[in-house]
Amino acid sequence: MNHYPASLKQLIDNLARLPGIGRKSAERLALHILKASHREADLLASSIVEVKKRVRLCRRCFALAEEDYCPVCTNMNRDHSRICVVEKPADMAAIEMSGGYNGSYHILQGALSPMDGIGPDDLRIAELLKRVDVDGPSEVILATGTNVEGEATAAFISEKLHHQPVRVTRIASGVPMGGDLKYVDQVTLKRAMETRHDTRYLDK
Amino acid sequence: MNHYPASLKQLIDNLARLPGIGRKSAERLALHILKASHREADLLASSIVEVKKRVRLCRRCFALAEEDYCPVCTNMNRDHSRICVVEKPADMAAIEMSGGYNGSYHILQGALSPMDGIGPDDLRIAELLKRVDVDGPSEVILATGTNVEGEATAAFISEKLHHQPVRVTRIASGVPMGGDLKYVDQVTLKRAMETRHDTRYLDK
Repeated sequence: MNHYPASLKQLIDNLARLPGIGRKSAERLALHILKASHREADLLASSIVEVKKRVRLCRRCFALAEEDYCPVCTNMNRDHSRICVVEKPADMAAIEMSGGYNGSYHILQGALSPMDGIGPDDLRIAELLKRVDVDGPSEVILATGTNVEGEATAAFISEKLHHQPVRVTRIASGVPMGGDLKYVDQVTLKRAMETRHDTRYLDK
Repeated sequence: MNHYPASLKQLIDNLARLPGIGRKSAERLALHILKASHREADLLASSIVEVKKRVRLCRRCFALAEEDYCPVCTNMNRDHSRICVVEKPADMAAIEMSGGYNGSYHILQGALSPMDGIGPDDLRIAELLKRVDVDGPSEVILATGTNVEGEATAAFISEKLHHQPVRVTRIASGVPMGGDLKYVDQVTLKRAMETRHDTRYLDK
């Protein structure tokens, strides 16, 4: 690419480092930024700087926040007797978008993964256990992923909370809504069968 | 997305404005930037600002440049008696990458498109005609696109150069290299047949 000016090459290189952005996409984005108004480019650049400057982790649940505590933790209309444990901020975002939960969260910042050298001390597990100990919530919902790492993390935390007077639940796995049984993989179907529930739920 | 901090929402919004980046991708990129080192984020932000500040159009061929003239125009090892006419900087980049051309360029900054209100005066056609008049090149290669707009633009320029003592050529259209004839569309195949050439070329 020695026919592009140095500053453009630099921008393409930096964009290509972003996840899911290849050289071709980076080139397309860079040429778009070059064509965009000065205002649009400045907004994009300054929002990158701002996000790094402002965003930190909530001191209680480790969600993304711009203050010491996140909006969920400071919202008195939320049910703080429930703690939903997730791996990443994006998981919390997905649950919030679903609208099916009004409790608080605890973001572990990852999942146990011995292969990648991630043990309990690399996650916010100690903080969760302390929170349960001090605040005495009624329920801890383990909403880590349903892959090997997420399952292991859920099992690990469940074990750690065994002697606490708290209900520990796991988010349900099963046939996706609108899904066709014949397209669901065997492991999911087996889990869906094992965790079947009474139809009382449907009558509500 | 009212669960993300304001500065993060702002970054997601700005990223989602880029072409080919949807909300989900913007969210993923923003969370990556948030997790990246301060140095990486600053580099990305400053390269956006720099590219807008530094890059301008070459005064001769309208390629992207950081000086008054682009590296191709100031390179004395290039054959300045040939001018390859393309629509966009990315087209020039593609030809440079192919390594099959050592002449100079003229970047029109688009193609004729009456539907979008783009006429000859919106492109760098007058500058091309003047360049041909003053510099007297031996060949003008029309390498605009092979879609309707590119073809019309090539035809328009060819007509304008009709009375100039310059060879005007059109980049070849045909079966892509490594391509199978049965998968090539009819228009391309018709053009490939019409513009067939002697096999002398193969003997070289």
